[in-house]
Amino acid sequence: MARPKTVTKRGGAETWATDLTSISPNRVLVRGYRLDDLMGRVGFGEATYLLLTGDLPTPSVGRLVDAMLVSFIDHGATPPSTLAARNTATTGASIRGAVAAGVLGFGRYHGGDSLACRALLDEGLDISRGGPSLASAAKLLVEQLIEKEDIPPPGFGHRYHTIDPRATRLLQIAHELEADHSYAQLLRALEQTMSEHPDLKDRPLPINVDGAIAAVCGDLGLPSEVADALLIISRVPGLAAHVLEEQRREAPMRVIDPSKHTYDGPPERRLPERRK
Amino acid sequence: MARPKTVTKRGGAETWATDLTSISPNRVLVRGYRLDDLMGRVGFGEATYLLLTGDLPTPSVGRLVDAMLVSFIDHGATPPSTLAARNTATTGASIRGAVAAGVLGFGRYHGGDSLACRALLDEGLDISRGGPSLASAAKLLVEQLIEKEDIPPPGFGHRYHTIDPRATRLLQIAHELEADHSYAQLLRALEQTMSEHPDLKDRPLPINVDGAIAAVCGDLGLPSEVADALLIISRVPGLAAHVLEEQRREAPMRVIDPSKHTYDGPPERRLPERRK
Amino acid sequence: MARPKTVTKRGGAETWATDLTSISPNRVLVRGYRLDDLMGRVGFGEATYLLLTGDLPTPSVGRLVDAMLVSFIDHGATPPSTLAARNTATTGASIRGAVAAGVLGFGRYHGGDSLACRALLDEGLDISRGGPSLASAAKLLVEQLIEKEDIPPPGFGHRYHTIDPRATRLLQIAHELEADHSYAQLLRALEQTMSEHPDLKDRPLPINVDGAIAAVCGDLGLPSEVADALLIISRVPGLAAHVLEEQRREAPMRVIDPSKHTYDGPPERRLPERRK
Amino acid sequence: MARPKTVTKRGGAETWATDLTSISPNRVLVRGYRLDDLMGRVGFGEATYLLLTGDLPTPSVGRLVDAMLVSFIDHGATPPSTLAARNTATTGASIRGAVAAGVLGFGRYHGGDSLACRALLDEGLDISRGGPSLASAAKLLVEQLIEKEDIPPPGFGHRYHTIDPRATRLLQIAHELEADHSYAQLLRALEQTMSEHPDLKDRPLPINVDGAIAAVCGDLGLPSEVADALLIISRVPGLAAHVLEEQRREAPMRVIDPSKHTYDGPPERRLPERRK
Repeated sequence: MARPKTVTKRGGAETWATDLTSISPNRVLVRGYRLDDLMGRVGFGEATYLLLTGDLPTPSVGRLVDAMLVSFIDHGATPPSTLAARNTATTGASIRGAVAAGVLGFGRYHGGDSLACRALLDEGLDISRGGPSLASAAKLLVEQLIEKEDIPPPGFGHRYHTIDPRATRLLQIAHELEADHSYAQLLRALEQTMSEHPDLKDRPLPINVDGAIAAVCGDLGLPSEVADALLIISRVPGLAAHVLEEQRREAPMRVIDPSKHTYDGPPERRLPERRK
Repeated sequence: MARPKTVTKRGGAETWATDLTSISPNRVLVRGYRLDDLMGRVGFGEATYLLLTGDLPTPSVGRLVDAMLVSFIDHGATPPSTLAARNTATTGASIRGAVAAGVLGFGRYHGGDSLACRALLDEGLDISRGGPSLASAAKLLVEQLIEKEDIPPPGFGHRYHTIDPRATRLLQIAHELEADHSYAQLLRALEQTMSEHPDLKDRPLPINVDGAIAAVCGDLGLPSEVADALLIISRVPGLAAHVLEEQRREAPMRVIDPSKHTYDGPPERRLPERRK
Repeated sequence: MARPKTVTKRGGAETWATDLTSISPNRVLVRGYRLDDLMGRVGFGEATYLLLTGDLPTPSVGRLVDAMLVSFIDHGATPPSTLAARNTATTGASIRGAVAAGVLGFGRYHGGDSLACRALLDEGLDISRGGPSLASAAKLLVEQLIEKEDIPPPGFGHRYHTIDPRATRLLQIAHELEADHSYAQLLRALEQTMSEHPDLKDRPLPINVDGAIAAVCGDLGLPSEVADALLIISRVPGLAAHVLEEQRREAPMRVIDPSKHTYDGPPERRLPERRK
Repeated sequence: MARPKTVTKRGGAETWATDLTSISPNRVLVRGYRLDDLMGRVGFGEATYLLLTGDLPTPSVGRLVDAMLVSFIDHGATPPSTLAARNTATTGASIRGAVAAGVLGFGRYHGGDSLACRALLDEGLDISRGGPSLASAAKLLVEQLIEKEDIPPPGFGHRYHTIDPRATRLLQIAHELEADHSYAQLLRALEQTMSEHPDLKDRPLPINVDGAIAAVCGDLGLPSEVADALLIISRVPGLAAHVLEEQRREAPMRVIDPSKHTYDGPPERRLPERRK
């Protein structure tokens, strides 16, 4: 466990700096841009990218980042983070308190799979940099995963979906925007290798949304911790929506049984034309 | 204090419903739209609006919602919520833990001013519905506020800014998009009334970002609690960016003295042309 | 909504004081006592009381505070705060993250009943100070509660228990220690009045643990917010125990259905003799 | 990163068990004991130990656990977890929200040192089990720590104290109660070895409270995660006291500068006789 070596002296708080946002009277600069100039000109996803990375995304990258944020915005009432938020909301807690409880649920296993998949891809790309093709690196990784009994590997397989529609679409958008590079290629090579492997081929291990996000963030050059932050940010609207619904529709202090819920929202409908 | 009347029986968890998101194998519907259809076609701000309200915004409303979310995305290193997040990050906590600590800081006074301003505007519009003009309602409200010593009222004045550039710009965008109605008009009438009032005119009480957001949400017909949720959502990228910066730039377990920080990011720069 | 009138100037952080704990090299004083002197001489409950109130409790009060803290230490797997903690733990979150999620569940309805009961008792004692007996004040309050349809009132009734054994025992201990005064008397008068009221007598409305704690804290002269803090503190060991159990016994990312749990701990057993 | 292998099926929530607390009408059993029997007979620290470990402590162990919980109950206004709680309180957040923010600050570096010290001690005891004396194991560990530049090691040194009075007293109590075994012995051997080491002897590296707690928990046979939970539990009263003080004494939305605080509580005073 890495630990800090510098022991701060009492009262020795020194000058420190931030390069995010500058506040002076009547002027707010975010990464150098006036916040009031950004308003109306960049979307919330683009401003998020600017804040986290220091630069405005190109329009293509902005569209990809938005697609990524939208892909993870909600996944129904059963994720444990959503249940933590709802269980907090039913006690009469504030919206912020219930949302915070939900944010805490992005643990090692939930959302964290994206980070673990990123580490796996980094490992494969390291191997590949030494000479072998991505396909060879994928084969090597899969053998290692089987040996370590780490199947399904992070970024593959899903408890509900045999094909994760969010993953498929996100990788497709990245491809259309010419933003899929070695991370996405290795991710696909891993999926392919597993589907053909004699020990695994009966078991569907499709790329899931965590894997697709890991690859897209890798190909965008985003550090792992920025990718992690994006995942948390992307789910907050979903958490908030569940909290508001819990408070609006349900009696307080109810026992929330996730297996007993149904969906009573609108049936499947088409997007308005102009959005296509 | 309102309290629940229904006492749930033990084990009596009954069927309950959500109208937000439907998960079935290989298909995710958000408010009836396929999530993979939304990806690449709507921005993160629009998808947030869809999730919270049930409908896709028109392009104008979508732009206004994005502007509102961007307006509140960060406000430097000194807001107490940001300091709570940084103090948590310096202990070596996870990103989600530090972000959650920041979310908890959206208390009655921080962010909550927007809700209090909304209540004030609702009160004024109620008066106005009974006959008086908005200008008369504003005068009545200001007299009441002075009597209750509630000056500055919620939504007006700022500790740093004599003119809050975010408020000015947000109301201007609402105006350009023809989305400023009675809430925005009453907000402006209140500002005008206070600037001319003999007891207040030496004290600048400009509309602040909390007030502008309150009016815009009111004019969009969003319930108070949805407006509250939007505020929380909008600041999460800022909290996450401070957490990442704290972990990247600072020694762990430091004593964080907010009065000793500086800004060392890029100096003011222009937005690239295509964004204008 | 009360709001702050003082707008702090930027950078104007001024000297401020705490009267809780003084840290100087090699010496820690808690409320004036050396922490190393307290260690081994006062229990954790007594030290908690010292920290929150400024004084060491008498041995009797210390014993009562301990009984109160123990009474609320856990209430099984179904309280929503416990479920929020378990749902967070199942994601692989840290112990502190999952415990924090549980703490957030002490909302208006959960635990908050104790505060609402305190307000009710304060109201009754105010009436009684004007002349009427406690019995008359109780009758008046019950009529008001029925009229406002606020039945069960806070501090009475329980979803599982027809007689809450924790309430009975806590009030008995307070009585033995001669620490039950007007709050406890009014609480009992309210229970009595409701049990005899023609509109309520078919419905058991026994004093519950929230009510007993409210009365005991009132009789100890603790402000409402200190009582609230004691409730939160008292449940943290329970939350932590559920988090540890979730991590030790269950598979990660499970769907937690509260109606499907059983108890497999030791059957009822007697306390060792020396404890009696 | 260890990940779950079992992918739960949708709706497949199965029966699960808890061995902590059994709730049936009018009866609450904690680890088999009636909660109303425990009340008035065991202290809060003992009940905490019962809940976390499954057994009532002996009176000696109970006293040691109480001393340990008291040792960590507060450490003034500057720990980052306390500042996170105060920064949240100043926004007008609820007590529970601000306490939860503080709990989140028990990160890798704050409090976590106790866990890291436990791991170090476990490593040394493993070495010793292979033959070498504790003194030899300590020497080996110190050489490794110097080589890894992991100085100060977890559990040693303090930013304020050259001798941590809490550590000294806790180890003394453990000794008096004959509860200091191999963990405490190795801890002392490490301190001794470092004080005599030519590369370290000019630098005071006394055992700190994290180290003492790690050793006491080790000698009590408590698993690391139970020790971690005890640390979190022990600081909650301190967090709550700071939150209450912030709300009682300070203006809302203030800028909290930790270097500008003073102590204005009672001067050092003696414990009442009967406590000695």
